[in-house]
Amino acid sequence: MKLISFSRNGQDSWGAVEGDKVADLGHLAPDLKSGLTMDISAALAQAPRHALDSLTFLPVIPNPGKIFCIGINYTTHISETGRDFPTKPVIFMRVAESQQGHLQPLLRPQESEQFDFEGELAVVIGKPIRRVTPEDALDAVAGYSCYNDGSVRDWQRHSSQFAPGKNFFRTGGFGPWLVTADEVPDPSTLHLTTRLNGDVMQEAPISDLVFGVRELISYCSTFTPLAPGDVIVTGTTGGVGAFRDPKVWMAPGDQVEVEISGIGTLVNFIADDDTRSAAS
Amino acid sequence: MKLISFSRNGQDSWGAVEGDKVADLGHLAPDLKSGLTMDISAALAQAPRHALDSLTFLPVIPNPGKIFCIGINYTTHISETGRDFPTKPVIFMRVAESQQGHLQPLLRPQESEQFDFEGELAVVIGKPIRRVTPEDALDAVAGYSCYNDGSVRDWQRHSSQFAPGKNFFRTGGFGPWLVTADEVPDPSTLHLTTRLNGDVMQEAPISDLVFGVRELISYCSTFTPLAPGDVIVTGTTGGVGAFRDPKVWMAPGDQVEVEISGIGTLVNFIADDDTRSAAS
Repeated sequence: MKLISFSRNGQDSWGAVEGDKVADLGHLAPDLKSGLTMDISAALAQAPRHALDSLTFLPVIPNPGKIFCIGINYTTHISETGRDFPTKPVIFMRVAESQQGHLQPLLRPQESEQFDFEGELAVVIGKPIRRVTPEDALDAVAGYSCYNDGSVRDWQRHSSQFAPGKNFFRTGGFGPWLVTADEVPDPSTLHLTTRLNGDVMQEAPISDLVFGVRELISYCSTFTPLAPGDVIVTGTTGGVGAFRDPKVWMAPGDQVEVEISGIGTLVNFIADDDTRSAAS
Repeated sequence: MKLISFSRNGQDSWGAVEGDKVADLGHLAPDLKSGLTMDISAALAQAPRHALDSLTFLPVIPNPGKIFCIGINYTTHISETGRDFPTKPVIFMRVAESQQGHLQPLLRPQESEQFDFEGELAVVIGKPIRRVTPEDALDAVAGYSCYNDGSVRDWQRHSSQFAPGKNFFRTGGFGPWLVTADEVPDPSTLHLTTRLNGDVMQEAPISDLVFGVRELISYCSTFTPLAPGDVIVTGTTGGVGAFRDPKVWMAPGDQVEVEISGIGTLVNFIADDDTRSAAS
């Protein structure tokens, strides 16, 4: 099943995609995060249907309790960064406001032109867990999605810690939908491709991850309880704009796509951020 | 005014401290975060009173949208870590579940004995802001509190990024209360002291901050909108356990206090974490 969060006539909701329609499940739970722990099959029959192209996509989980991102987790990306091979997962975090939905603009901030893409596989947690073993970790997964861990490179390097460059408002694409875990028995069989204006910029099998999905869930659940709706963004592969010669930065009008086989294609275009206040 | 979050008879609420009593404002808003934008003076008269010592303290803001912590932001701490003097604020994040209330146990995890204290001034945001200047930044502050940015040092050093060691479950003390900003016209005049089992371990004037409260709010609000209830934890000073000879780690039974003049004293004791699942 494909689950999405969306906005329609100014009202946020969520539901299940059926071809070019969406079954609206907003009456069952206030948001997809809450719906992840419910049996939605019975509710589907009575759900009102909307045309998929009449909706505004929100980030798959607009309000995650936690978003853990993994750095330098593919061999090709480790090589291009010149960083040491990690002995433990490199973990940083994003805030909810840094996310953006499918087909919505990723915002290049006023403060920098170094706006880069990072295509990644996102894992959405579906059960409360703590200190889960790698062997049991996949049982806690609600599903998978595509993520563009959009990065403002100069701000990422303001200090040793990545947070500022990884948290500019509406810089991270998350979508188009969550494909439930029953349809993805082994995420390592998936394949990741990132395209900028149609050109392939990144391409790798998910099996190239240094720390795989099982290990990442186990590691994060060791230090913190994971809850339904929490997101683990598993890291990007070689080919980011910052390490190309010449460097490639995303600019207004560009279109960026993150495709994962068996999941779908997250499409965003780039726009300038003219936000002046939090209300905008 | 002093505002707290608390639990009473299994019910979470919040209110205003009046001597040894608390005026319960739970009828006005579901939590202190929501209450920060309300005029509570009219509601105070009708609020039921509870004895302060009959309540369980929660973290001042149990559910912040964002918790930005600042690393190596005092000269004495920079010297002891051997790190370079920062040219920009060093920002990492904590998750809500890593927090703990006044008089509640900070949990030493099963995975490490390197459990260290970091006394800090916490700033709680009271208004939605984006790209605020340092000059205007204090207008957005709801109030101030004490924070113990409890750190599991070996996990903090698993990679270049601090998140795992800064996010173990219930390792960060936040309390006892928020002192509203009208009572603290200039936070740089405050004084910070951390005591372990009564011995002074850290002591510094807040004016020693490399990046002060105004600069930190301005910097964070540049990359992300800040909202009521967001927390900025301003960094710790010299004297942490990791850089003492011999090293000092917190162990079960220890009592740790973070006192800030004009704010109050956050007291926690240390206990072993025997959490096995997220439900515990």
